[in-house]
Amino acid sequence: MTYCAAIHVNDGLVFIADSRTNAGVDQVSTYSKMHEFGVPGERQFVLLSAGNLGTTQAVLASIRKDLEDADAEVSLATVSDLPAAAEYIGQLSLAEQRKYVTSGGHTAGFDPQVSFILGGQVAGREPGIYLIYPQGNYITTSQTTRFLQIGESKYGKPILDRIIRADTSLADAARCALVSMDSTMRSNLTVGPPIEVQIYTADRMSLGPRIVLADDHPYLREIRQGWDENIREAFKNMPPLRPSLFKSDDNS
Amino acid sequence: MTYCAAIHVNDGLVFIADSRTNAGVDQVSTYSKMHEFGVPGERQFVLLSAGNLGTTQAVLASIRKDLEDADAEVSLATVSDLPAAAEYIGQLSLAEQRKYVTSGGHTAGFDPQVSFILGGQVAGREPGIYLIYPQGNYITTSQTTRFLQIGESKYGKPILDRIIRADTSLADAARCALVSMDSTMRSNLTVGPPIEVQIYTADRMSLGPRIVLADDHPYLREIRQGWDENIREAFKNMPPLRPSLFKSDDNS
Repeated sequence: MTYCAAIHVNDGLVFIADSRTNAGVDQVSTYSKMHEFGVPGERQFVLLSAGNLGTTQAVLASIRKDLEDADAEVSLATVSDLPAAAEYIGQLSLAEQRKYVTSGGHTAGFDPQVSFILGGQVAGREPGIYLIYPQGNYITTSQTTRFLQIGESKYGKPILDRIIRADTSLADAARCALVSMDSTMRSNLTVGPPIEVQIYTADRMSLGPRIVLADDHPYLREIRQGWDENIREAFKNMPPLRPSLFKSDDNS
Repeated sequence: MTYCAAIHVNDGLVFIADSRTNAGVDQVSTYSKMHEFGVPGERQFVLLSAGNLGTTQAVLASIRKDLEDADAEVSLATVSDLPAAAEYIGQLSLAEQRKYVTSGGHTAGFDPQVSFILGGQVAGREPGIYLIYPQGNYITTSQTTRFLQIGESKYGKPILDRIIRADTSLADAARCALVSMDSTMRSNLTVGPPIEVQIYTADRMSLGPRIVLADDHPYLREIRQGWDENIREAFKNMPPLRPSLFKSDDNS
C-alpha cells in the first residue's frame, strides 16, 4: 500500500509520500510516489499517487509526452488553473484504466485504479491541492479541512485532525505530516521509507529540493523515538479511572 | 459504523465499544454492542459486535435460547473452552447470514455480515479474547499482539500499538482503550457515545458493573480535552525541521 498526504496552509503547501510498492507478497520495491512538473516562475505542480503502478506510470508518461508536444490539446504547461489540471489528469487516468475493463464491466483479474493528489500553483491564481479519484472526479480542501490523504489514510488522520489549521506554519505542517507518516508506518508494514517531503511556499512559483529520509536517517529516528516517548508521556498525564465511573461502587 | 476493541493483559481483560448504529443515512440509533453471558464462579463471556444489526440480534437470540434449553447440543453454559465458544458463535453467525444468500451467491441487496470479539474465561482455563470473522473462523492474540479490534479500527490502532504490553495494568489498558476510542470518534463521525467499558480481572469468574459514558460525561470530556492538549504539547516537543534536511542548502 501507500500513504500520501498534502496540506494547504496560508503560507503554502506541504506534500509527503512513502516509497513502498508491492506487486504480490514477494515483490516489494521502492518507487517514488512524488512527481514534480512545472515552468519555474510560471507554474508548479506536485503529483502524489496511490494505487496501481502500471496506471500511475502510464499517466506520468502521458503527462510528460503532452508537455513535450507543442501541439498537445491540453498539457500541464497550458492548463489555465488547478481544477483544469485535475480534470486533465483524471481523464488520463480513466483512459488508461479503461484499457483493462472487459465487455462485462469487470477488469482483467487486477485492480487498475489509482488515486492522485495534485497540488501547486499557476501564476495569478491561488495555490491549492486536489484529490483525484480513480473515477476521474476530484475534490479540493475547505476552510476547515486543510489536508487531503490517499492510500492508507486512517492511521495518520487523527494527528492531522488535531494539529492542522489554516494558520499552521509550513514548518509545523511538514513536521505534522512526518508524525502522521510515522504513526502510519508503525501500524501498517506496507507503508515504508524512504519518506519524501516537498514544501511549496505560496507565490514562489518554484520548487526547492525535497527532503528524502531513508529508514536510518537521524531525523526520521528522532521523530520516531521522540513521538513514541512524547505519546507515552502524554498518556501518563491522562486522568486515571475513578471508582465513581462504575455504576455501583462494589467493583472499585 | 462501529468501533470495538478488547485487550488481554496479564491481569485480565478490557472491553470497549461505542453505541452508534445506522441503517441508512437518516436512521441513526443507539444500541449497546457489548453483551455479557455467564455463570458466576464458573464461566464469564463478553461479546462485542460490529456489522449488520439483524444478524447480531439473531445470533444473540440463538445464544440466549441455547442457554435456556437444557437439551441444547452446544451452549455457552456447556462449551469446554473459549475456542469452542468462538466456533459455536461463528457457526451461529454463518447460519444466520446464509438465509440471505441467493442461489447466485449474492446477498439480497444488503450486507448481512458481522464480526465479533469474544472474551472471557472458563474455570480451569486461561482468560482470552477471540476475533470471530464474518466467515465463521476466528483468531486470538499472541504474546506480542495483546489486542483485537473490529469495525473502524485504524484510527485508534496507533495508540494501542504504542502503549499496550502484556504487563500493562488493567486500569492503564482501560484508559488506553478510551483514548483509542476518542481518536476514532474525533476522526470518524459514525462512531459515537455512549461508550461502554467492561473490565474482567483474571480468575475472578464474575463481571462487575460496566462503565457507561454518555457524550457529556465529565470523564469522557476530561479524556477528550486532556488528550487533545497533551497531543498538542507532545507535538510542540518534536524536533524542528533543519536546513540540512534538504538535499542542498539553497532552500533553507
